[in-house]
Amino acid sequence: MSIKKICVVVTARPSYSRIKTALTAIKNHPELELQLVIAGSALLGRYGNAVDFIENDGFKIDEKVFMVLEGENPTSMAKTTGLGVMELANVFYRLQPDAVVTIADRFETIATSIAASYQNIPLIHIQGGEVTGNIDEKVRHANTKLADLHLVASQDAKERVLKMGENPATVFNTGCPSIDLASEIKQNPNLDFDPIEKYGGVGADVNWKEEGYIVVMQHPVTTEYASARKDVEQTLQAVHELGIPTFWFWPNVDAGSDGTSNGIRTFREIKKPENIHFFKNMEPKDFLKLLINSKCLIGNSSAGIRECSYLGVPVVNIGSRQNRRQRGNNVLNSSYDKNEIIKAIENRISSKNITSSTIYGDGKSGDRIADILAKTPLSFHKTITY
Amino acid sequence: MSIKKICVVVTARPSYSRIKTALTAIKNHPELELQLVIAGSALLGRYGNAVDFIENDGFKIDEKVFMVLEGENPTSMAKTTGLGVMELANVFYRLQPDAVVTIADRFETIATSIAASYQNIPLIHIQGGEVTGNIDEKVRHANTKLADLHLVASQDAKERVLKMGENPATVFNTGCPSIDLASEIKQNPNLDFDPIEKYGGVGADVNWKEEGYIVVMQHPVTTEYASARKDVEQTLQAVHELGIPTFWFWPNVDAGSDGTSNGIRTFREIKKPENIHFFKNMEPKDFLKLLINSKCLIGNSSAGIRECSYLGVPVVNIGSRQNRRQRGNNVLNSSYDKNEIIKAIENRISSKNITSSTIYGDGKSGDRIADILAKTPLSFHKTITY
Amino acid sequence: MSIKKICVVVTARPSYSRIKTALTAIKNHPELELQLVIAGSALLGRYGNAVDFIENDGFKIDEKVFMVLEGENPTSMAKTTGLGVMELANVFYRLQPDAVVTIADRFETIATSIAASYQNIPLIHIQGGEVTGNIDEKVRHANTKLADLHLVASQDAKERVLKMGENPATVFNTGCPSIDLASEIKQNPNLDFDPIEKYGGVGADVNWKEEGYIVVMQHPVTTEYASARKDVEQTLQAVHELGIPTFWFWPNVDAGSDGTSNGIRTFREIKKPENIHFFKNMEPKDFLKLLINSKCLIGNSSAGIRECSYLGVPVVNIGSRQNRRQRGNNVLNSSYDKNEIIKAIENRISSKNITSSTIYGDGKSGDRIADILAKTPLSFHKTITY
Amino acid sequence: MSIKKICVVVTARPSYSRIKTALTAIKNHPELELQLVIAGSALLGRYGNAVDFIENDGFKIDEKVFMVLEGENPTSMAKTTGLGVMELANVFYRLQPDAVVTIADRFETIATSIAASYQNIPLIHIQGGEVTGNIDEKVRHANTKLADLHLVASQDAKERVLKMGENPATVFNTGCPSIDLASEIKQNPNLDFDPIEKYGGVGADVNWKEEGYIVVMQHPVTTEYASARKDVEQTLQAVHELGIPTFWFWPNVDAGSDGTSNGIRTFREIKKPENIHFFKNMEPKDFLKLLINSKCLIGNSSAGIRECSYLGVPVVNIGSRQNRRQRGNNVLNSSYDKNEIIKAIENRISSKNITSSTIYGDGKSGDRIADILAKTPLSFHKTITY
Repeated sequence: MSIKKICVVVTARPSYSRIKTALTAIKNHPELELQLVIAGSALLGRYGNAVDFIENDGFKIDEKVFMVLEGENPTSMAKTTGLGVMELANVFYRLQPDAVVTIADRFETIATSIAASYQNIPLIHIQGGEVTGNIDEKVRHANTKLADLHLVASQDAKERVLKMGENPATVFNTGCPSIDLASEIKQNPNLDFDPIEKYGGVGADVNWKEEGYIVVMQHPVTTEYASARKDVEQTLQAVHELGIPTFWFWPNVDAGSDGTSNGIRTFREIKKPENIHFFKNMEPKDFLKLLINSKCLIGNSSAGIRECSYLGVPVVNIGSRQNRRQRGNNVLNSSYDKNEIIKAIENRISSKNITSSTIYGDGKSGDRIADILAKTPLSFHKTITY
Repeated sequence: MSIKKICVVVTARPSYSRIKTALTAIKNHPELELQLVIAGSALLGRYGNAVDFIENDGFKIDEKVFMVLEGENPTSMAKTTGLGVMELANVFYRLQPDAVVTIADRFETIATSIAASYQNIPLIHIQGGEVTGNIDEKVRHANTKLADLHLVASQDAKERVLKMGENPATVFNTGCPSIDLASEIKQNPNLDFDPIEKYGGVGADVNWKEEGYIVVMQHPVTTEYASARKDVEQTLQAVHELGIPTFWFWPNVDAGSDGTSNGIRTFREIKKPENIHFFKNMEPKDFLKLLINSKCLIGNSSAGIRECSYLGVPVVNIGSRQNRRQRGNNVLNSSYDKNEIIKAIENRISSKNITSSTIYGDGKSGDRIADILAKTPLSFHKTITY
Repeated sequence: MSIKKICVVVTARPSYSRIKTALTAIKNHPELELQLVIAGSALLGRYGNAVDFIENDGFKIDEKVFMVLEGENPTSMAKTTGLGVMELANVFYRLQPDAVVTIADRFETIATSIAASYQNIPLIHIQGGEVTGNIDEKVRHANTKLADLHLVASQDAKERVLKMGENPATVFNTGCPSIDLASEIKQNPNLDFDPIEKYGGVGADVNWKEEGYIVVMQHPVTTEYASARKDVEQTLQAVHELGIPTFWFWPNVDAGSDGTSNGIRTFREIKKPENIHFFKNMEPKDFLKLLINSKCLIGNSSAGIRECSYLGVPVVNIGSRQNRRQRGNNVLNSSYDKNEIIKAIENRISSKNITSSTIYGDGKSGDRIADILAKTPLSFHKTITY
Repeated sequence: MSIKKICVVVTARPSYSRIKTALTAIKNHPELELQLVIAGSALLGRYGNAVDFIENDGFKIDEKVFMVLEGENPTSMAKTTGLGVMELANVFYRLQPDAVVTIADRFETIATSIAASYQNIPLIHIQGGEVTGNIDEKVRHANTKLADLHLVASQDAKERVLKMGENPATVFNTGCPSIDLASEIKQNPNLDFDPIEKYGGVGADVNWKEEGYIVVMQHPVTTEYASARKDVEQTLQAVHELGIPTFWFWPNVDAGSDGTSNGIRTFREIKKPENIHFFKNMEPKDFLKLLINSKCLIGNSSAGIRECSYLGVPVVNIGSRQNRRQRGNNVLNSSYDKNEIIKAIENRISSKNITSSTIYGDGKSGDRIADILAKTPLSFHKTITY
């Protein structure tokens, strides 16, 4: 029995949550060896030092790849991706994996896909087949066309990948590993820490213990770069007016990052909102505990679509970022309009009908992924099915 | 009426033939402005100095992009692509085109696609939707998923692009501009030059005038890198044994280039084949005249599938490179086996039933492409249709 | 008479102050044509958007080069430099200048030097020959050895460049263009704006109008990366204890940037110092007016050594960054020790003997530089003189 | 006792000969650990596959770095260097050496210097302080200014490095390791192999056994790129006219490489010179045996200045490439003129006064270098001495 070397490339904080239990399952599987590459914004303090969480979780990192170009326009996104291809080509040449895993649809994930497939290394794409819009949409489906094995997170996604012409023998609905964490937390949902005490952050010392709280996480939508600042201001004003204690998370790296971040920073300096506390980051488990105990999640994070649907947490989903992704009855959409956002939050907070859903997994995705990797023959040749 | 700036990126000699008449039509169209970027191996003497032909044809080049890494393995293909993304991102940032055109499926064409789509520039993909195999297959379909407008070369290709989930309003069967050249030549097919006199080259001074001749063009198939040398030797031996005067063209750049090239070089030094003359390159028109007057084309060039089907030239297509591409009755397939190749050539040379076909175009593709570019609204947003 | 195209590459905010009057003089000189390239941190909002000041000053920018890699260690400094070489090679290939100007000794300036000299373009180095220590020291002298013409800022520097083996016909003491600005301001030194009103910034609304103020600008010293945070805390505590109204400027980009910046940010959040106001940036002229009206400049900025010596402003120079640079009697050195810093500030504020000096120029450097560029024959061949 | 990790970067075939015995001595030294990085043209078949010789010599290679850009102009030299900085920054980050060794003055050696010094790794420069001209001259002295320890090959070079302001405690005349090999061969100088039989090559089967032979090695001089072809043709004609059996070596990688190579290739095709046999490469020991038994070495190789001075082999040194390098009485200079080259060769072949010299070493350089590396304290801080 030969051991397959599976090289997983994590390029950002949110990607780690989406793969963590699969990393553990790969590491522990007798027929697999985990090669872990941490790259891009996952290495950067400005985006929450995901690398520290990963090391604290006991993973050995085989390579670190610095590849993020600073900048305030989409050009730097493109150049970061190009640099990523060059760097990751080196990494795979050195590590000689039997397969490479690329995760979901962030812009830089295509760098992993190219560096692997061009070197004739079987490419495994996690969480293809979903629908959103914007550049993520293009990247996700391009990753599908470069990949040899598809481990998707929902039945809906599986059907879409098959329609695109992928061989049915290479498409598996594993569910999303992020639901594994959610499942674990759901069995023990106590908020057993004080968020401000444990994570510091900046802003008001909000009275969340008595009044409860909402959570906000709003990322810039890259193809609407110029309006990132205006968009986030609507949410800031809505949340400020409502006056409910709020935990707000800074956005992760993207071309519009400074638009959104600057919007938040300026609002904070000028309005000094007395009901909002800001965090840079939180350990995934703590973040899930925070969500499960919250009144509502607001913004455009995919956690609202995935983890929250499983956890049954109400969500106000703003704008086009999660577009046509399949969702549970916990989600209410809103445009970038202060008043609509306020109404949507009030609706969600008072709703009685929100239930839990297993659209995105049943809590066993990590093990399922490792098993499929061990059992499925890997190839780097493919041809469209029609 | 505003003028649309259309930026076309040509990265290799064969891509130029596939786009030339469209370049002329764009240049001459009153509503379009041509921005021409020459990149990659199209700039290199080792691969035939396509740039010189392009300038001789009267095109003004807006940017030259040196991006080809030397090397003897697929790692350099990947790194060339990454470097291409970085360089082309700069180029598009500077030229600010209204749309970017990427051509077909060579490995580095995805660099154009990423650099444009990540900067929110509408991306036009020429000649998607075909089927081959190998890395070209992955690159072509990934280009489709990154592109906003699809100008394909056959009905078959159009249906495939639609099945992949592209919006029907963005998919047009224009035929292939390479057929425009072929159509021109077909109307005046005299071989009005002496190939050896005009192009030099090396090897035997073959007696083609009296005996007729065959043409060989065999490229390395990148995912079978190691065997490139062995494969080309079978063809060399077959052609040598047959003893028919032969014009052989060196392969273009690819990871296996040195395998194939070394195979040819060594065979030449050792066997000094008295019936083979070797060329580096030929002007596209002269090449078509050479084909139309030949007994047969041998190898794996796409010219065998496209131009030769229109011209009605017999073709022996070797190996998997053109795999499932639609073809006329002029083509006979062969494996990499000397004896099978010999038999296939004999069959083709003596066949009486070879007819001309318009599968890949009717000779008016260039104008059709320019018209569509002028009339179709350009966008950089899209969502899969299912 | 042919016009010489002089391409100047500005990679950071402070470099712009050091070259501005020369840019104007080149632009206005009948025998010269200015090609202006803005690169690196000069393009980034995080580092003060130097590009905006440059455009406001009426300069046309020929190329913008995004090349700064994010990161928290010296690796990203090296990679930024490598990327700079690649990008600037393209830029010079396109602009075809008759000479390229690289400024001083920041780490990325060697990218300009390599991209020009390797392409056989005469290289002009501004402000070589000084002595500091750290990586700047290595970069500055390596720039000298790559350069063909040396325009230095002091007699001391001229002698040092000659000793290194440069041809005397290629070494000129022009003084520093930053003194040209200082000279202009000195003739009209009124603080004719309210800094907080005009530039915003964050922190306390200090009572500078009645009590006067000091200015702090402390950059990380890259080879002591780990201690950047500790070092800046000593200065913060010293300034806080003294209680004098203080205008503090954030540091510019460097590998230790986040160490210093985080030190400042944390101190601010925790101590909320009531006597410190923080600025990101200021127009060069306003900055000079601020200095000339201040009680003292504290930190390790080269403005303390250059402009302040000409303006006669007292300076406390902390640590090794300005090391062995020639200086006037306005400067008092201090180690990174809170108590020593306090004593040094008190000494400077009460000193009666501080005079003005022309070590670094007489206010006419810009014109002098343009004249030399116009009159000196340019070559890209050189040989060491011994 | 802690072991020092010494990372040596070899970027080209000729650099390997200049460091080989030092590599062995470092590998065998109890206080040192060798980290070997092979990069650039040393990895490429077109330039003689130095990597194969290195592995055959029993060295373990820690990293291979593909970084050579194809191209026909100096732009690709600059871009290769920039890419080298980026790649080598990664390599040193991963290997964490205690010191990095950069060799001599090829254009890409500055990439090693920057990647090491910017990451605060002590940099050791081998063979600085010599004088030539052209871009090598600039690169060599820039390397000196970036380096912390200088191991030079002659007394002359040592004095020059000191004059440039380096600390005397960091400058050592070790001689050149290439002389160690030469010394070994000199003790057993029999030509114990048939060059054509062992190395193949192309061209005439010259009668060297009876008539004796000369050796030619002529590299392009990069700052005279356009004339590389013209220059080499003069040498080709001279050697052809003389009619003496000749072993000619193809040039190594450089911007003009294709100029020189094409000149040779074309001359070969057209003239089919019956007295010249061409080699791509030869093992260093065999090359030295070939030299010691030859009538004369012609061209601009540094082997003519170094190894041949020690071996007492007559040399005709053409053009400016070796310019002001110290040399023995074996060398006669010539311009790029056929007739002058012919006269010079005739002079050398008939000269009676050529003696051996130890200017560049006594045969013990390798061990001396390892000892100094083990005993000298390593630092990455330095300041010019004046």
